[in-house]
Amino acid sequence: MEALKQKIRDEGTVLSEHVLKVDAFLNHQIDPKLMQQIGHEFAQRFAGQNITKIVTIEASGIAPAVMAGLELGVPVIFARKYQSLTLKDDLYISKVFSFTKQTESTLAISAKHLGAHDHVLLIDDFLANGHAARALIDLIGQAGASIAGIGVVIEKSFQRGRAELDAQGYRVESLARIDSLKDGQVSFID
Amino acid sequence: MEALKQKIRDEGTVLSEHVLKVDAFLNHQIDPKLMQQIGHEFAQRFAGQNITKIVTIEASGIAPAVMAGLELGVPVIFARKYQSLTLKDDLYISKVFSFTKQTESTLAISAKHLGAHDHVLLIDDFLANGHAARALIDLIGQAGASIAGIGVVIEKSFQRGRAELDAQGYRVESLARIDSLKDGQVSFID
Repeated sequence: MEALKQKIRDEGTVLSEHVLKVDAFLNHQIDPKLMQQIGHEFAQRFAGQNITKIVTIEASGIAPAVMAGLELGVPVIFARKYQSLTLKDDLYISKVFSFTKQTESTLAISAKHLGAHDHVLLIDDFLANGHAARALIDLIGQAGASIAGIGVVIEKSFQRGRAELDAQGYRVESLARIDSLKDGQVSFID
Repeated sequence: MEALKQKIRDEGTVLSEHVLKVDAFLNHQIDPKLMQQIGHEFAQRFAGQNITKIVTIEASGIAPAVMAGLELGVPVIFARKYQSLTLKDDLYISKVFSFTKQTESTLAISAKHLGAHDHVLLIDDFLANGHAARALIDLIGQAGASIAGIGVVIEKSFQRGRAELDAQGYRVESLARIDSLKDGQVSFID
């Protein structure tokens, strides 16, 4: 997706060979027009797949997921990282390790909102080592729901998440695939 | 906003005289179409105010804020509740107490994304005691930016937040104003 790649080139910051900062338009400040384009692209790629629900993780997955949900006409669930007082029903729970924050957190989805009849599109902002994707897949499995595919805004293709998901047979659609962040430069897979 | 009030009547759950659970369409599962209508309503109410930026809080504020930002044509910043490895620049920081979670957290906005030239619309999912709004106002004050107004999806009018913001001279636009949650019933101010 060229508009996204251009935004990464213009406003992304390479912090190390492993960390790309996109706080200017995705992870802290959000560009709503770009999110709409991203949502449109996901909806196009997963059109006709009989998706009933989109599942993402708070907080950075919400904007692209909601835009995709608007176009596909389905609800969006964001897995919560902390259990709050207003989420007291039965929960599906899975652990996830954040490479960026170097912490483990618990993801939770209310059992009420996801069931065996659901066919789910997963959406997340980044795919790197695949920890978040694995936790989401685990949650969806607990619900007995099926997975239509995984939509990723930015994939760091040099880390192992993409290869593992491919090997497990999941359909992964990444809108920008990064080959390398070496020498402070972003190189894309075309 | 009638569509929102009807959704609250149909899918909201009164947990106590102080807590309304709207996990079915706003705080956990999100209804993208309703978010678009909410964004449209905020954009209408604050049209012509020369807003340059929307500021909200992760996670539940993001969907309505991004939809409003799309229509107003301005970027959205979500204040983060935790400082991550990729947010190492100068930060504006403020403490906020969550009534729902009974915990204090730190809100942060990167100084790079908000400045004295900005005219800000605050958007949040709930207004109750006003703790979150006060923290956001504090952050915007640190940036030297001005405030066009405060857009609230659901206001619990029987708590003190609204009256305090009115007294301080802020323009508050709440799309659903709840008079009472007594006897398990939601009563709106019309």
